[in-house]
Amino acid sequence: MKNKILAITSGEPAGIGADICLDLPQHNLPCRVVVLGDIELLRNRAQMLQKNVKIREFDRFSQPEHNTLDVLHIPLRDVCEIGKLNPNNSPYVLELLDKAFDGVQAGEFAAMVTAPVHKGVINDYFSGSLKREFFSGHTEYLAEKSNTKQVVMMLAGGGMRVALLTTHLPLRDVADAITPQLIEDVAQILHHDLQTKFGIRSPKILLAGLNPHAGEGGHLGREELTIMQPTAAKLREQGMDISDPLPADTLFQPFLLNDADAVLAAYHDQGLPVLKYASFGGGVNITLGLPFIRTSVDHGTALTLAGSGKADSGSLKTAVEVAWQMVLAQQS
Amino acid sequence: MKNKILAITSGEPAGIGADICLDLPQHNLPCRVVVLGDIELLRNRAQMLQKNVKIREFDRFSQPEHNTLDVLHIPLRDVCEIGKLNPNNSPYVLELLDKAFDGVQAGEFAAMVTAPVHKGVINDYFSGSLKREFFSGHTEYLAEKSNTKQVVMMLAGGGMRVALLTTHLPLRDVADAITPQLIEDVAQILHHDLQTKFGIRSPKILLAGLNPHAGEGGHLGREELTIMQPTAAKLREQGMDISDPLPADTLFQPFLLNDADAVLAAYHDQGLPVLKYASFGGGVNITLGLPFIRTSVDHGTALTLAGSGKADSGSLKTAVEVAWQMVLAQQS
Repeated sequence: MKNKILAITSGEPAGIGADICLDLPQHNLPCRVVVLGDIELLRNRAQMLQKNVKIREFDRFSQPEHNTLDVLHIPLRDVCEIGKLNPNNSPYVLELLDKAFDGVQAGEFAAMVTAPVHKGVINDYFSGSLKREFFSGHTEYLAEKSNTKQVVMMLAGGGMRVALLTTHLPLRDVADAITPQLIEDVAQILHHDLQTKFGIRSPKILLAGLNPHAGEGGHLGREELTIMQPTAAKLREQGMDISDPLPADTLFQPFLLNDADAVLAAYHDQGLPVLKYASFGGGVNITLGLPFIRTSVDHGTALTLAGSGKADSGSLKTAVEVAWQMVLAQQS
Repeated sequence: MKNKILAITSGEPAGIGADICLDLPQHNLPCRVVVLGDIELLRNRAQMLQKNVKIREFDRFSQPEHNTLDVLHIPLRDVCEIGKLNPNNSPYVLELLDKAFDGVQAGEFAAMVTAPVHKGVINDYFSGSLKREFFSGHTEYLAEKSNTKQVVMMLAGGGMRVALLTTHLPLRDVADAITPQLIEDVAQILHHDLQTKFGIRSPKILLAGLNPHAGEGGHLGREELTIMQPTAAKLREQGMDISDPLPADTLFQPFLLNDADAVLAAYHDQGLPVLKYASFGGGVNITLGLPFIRTSVDHGTALTLAGSGKADSGSLKTAVEVAWQMVLAQQS
């Protein structure tokens, strides 16, 4: 296991990606990491932030050194001014992902951890000629590259794991998106990845109802009765340990969470406010369903904080630690 | 202020209402309370639970005594078996509310605090002949009795206050329910009651967006742009300190909450899971907009726990404390 290396994509160059990567050598990480990014950008940012860290070109065969950041150099395509998005660097941002992806596929890297990118600026660059949104996020990009039909977004932190049935949908579209097929697909990926990537032999999943009070017996919506409960029953018949739909407002209590491996929330703002509260904003985003391990920070590019010394690298640290735990669990 | 008495309705007699009321003398409360309920029921429950508490008939002019529960006796209408709902006692449950309401209106009680009732059994009794739902909850019942057109549900606990734009609606109906008029009405009641019932001179309100990431500039829903933001701007012009719609998942962070007096969430499961997590299930439900102070426990009748000694009276204690703080703030 000693040779296993985690690839970290440093993300949007004008944002805090470089800042938080520079903290990595201080974090006493359990594994070796390599940062993918422009080495001059990282050196300049280190100087600006007066970080006492040695930055060297990555060499797979060199020994890890104290207080040293290994960088797989990928050059910027254009100037990068801190805090200012430059669309011309969008191909660079994607190249970081492509290189990490290729390395993971080839077995050079054990997993990938991603720092934030800026969807808007990537689309500004690419979508004009395509007349469609080109880049809808890390997750979708990596799913497409790996021919993965369905991925599941899960966040971990604050002592809980929360996976989502639906993610970035307008609220008015959520109810119609909750189908038996979706619940089955997402629950099966969640169950499978908890087993294979987290080493949990018999994962226990708590399913949150779509409606307040899980519909209160049909008085506050019928999706629990017509869709969620029957699908949960079917999955239980197949051997999965998944609950009937439970009221979301009373679900996140220690006596329930301690006995479960993940909550499956129906939608974004049902599951994530509580997780991000519980983890003090330090949650980790994990993409399930991919044929490799990928974790991510759960914050954005924070353009206004870049170069200020105020960026908090706690989420990146945790994202690395979680990815490493998953690597170990997968091997065992 | 010494003569101010809080009325506590003991709620569904087969549930934990009596159990948690019996704990009140131990709680070192900041004010005098009287429990409305059947005195024999309370005595029997005390004996069963081996509670060392004196139960006496309420007399406004008697002195409070140590370890003594004052009970305004309202007789049950039929037998009450612990844990078993008896529809024939539904008129009793409503009489508790009516008496508390009358007392508050007459100035005999400074506020009312309600233990849980069971909507289903009350409707079983009343709605058959009416061919409609008779009782949709404490809040609606008290609103109707006091000719209050619009009330606002707010929960407090875990260091935060969360008010709701919509409450017990199926999720698919939420988006259409969020109108400029609703936001104005709810925000004005919230603002007004934070001033008059909580003594906060310039309340600061954080508004949560309806959609994930508050719509992300229209990419994930347009209600923030077309409805929420313009209404918030209008309210600010009128002098209210209310934010533009903010992403709910990153809203509940200490650096934002510490600087605000309340969060106004768009719907039930956006705001309450995090509050109930933060308060360890010990939140208090406060009805704003009523012409008097009413707080409530935020749990249900817990029929299976009644008489077991396992009911937790923490939420009732907090509900009394919060009601009393509001009484003091209102007077000041």
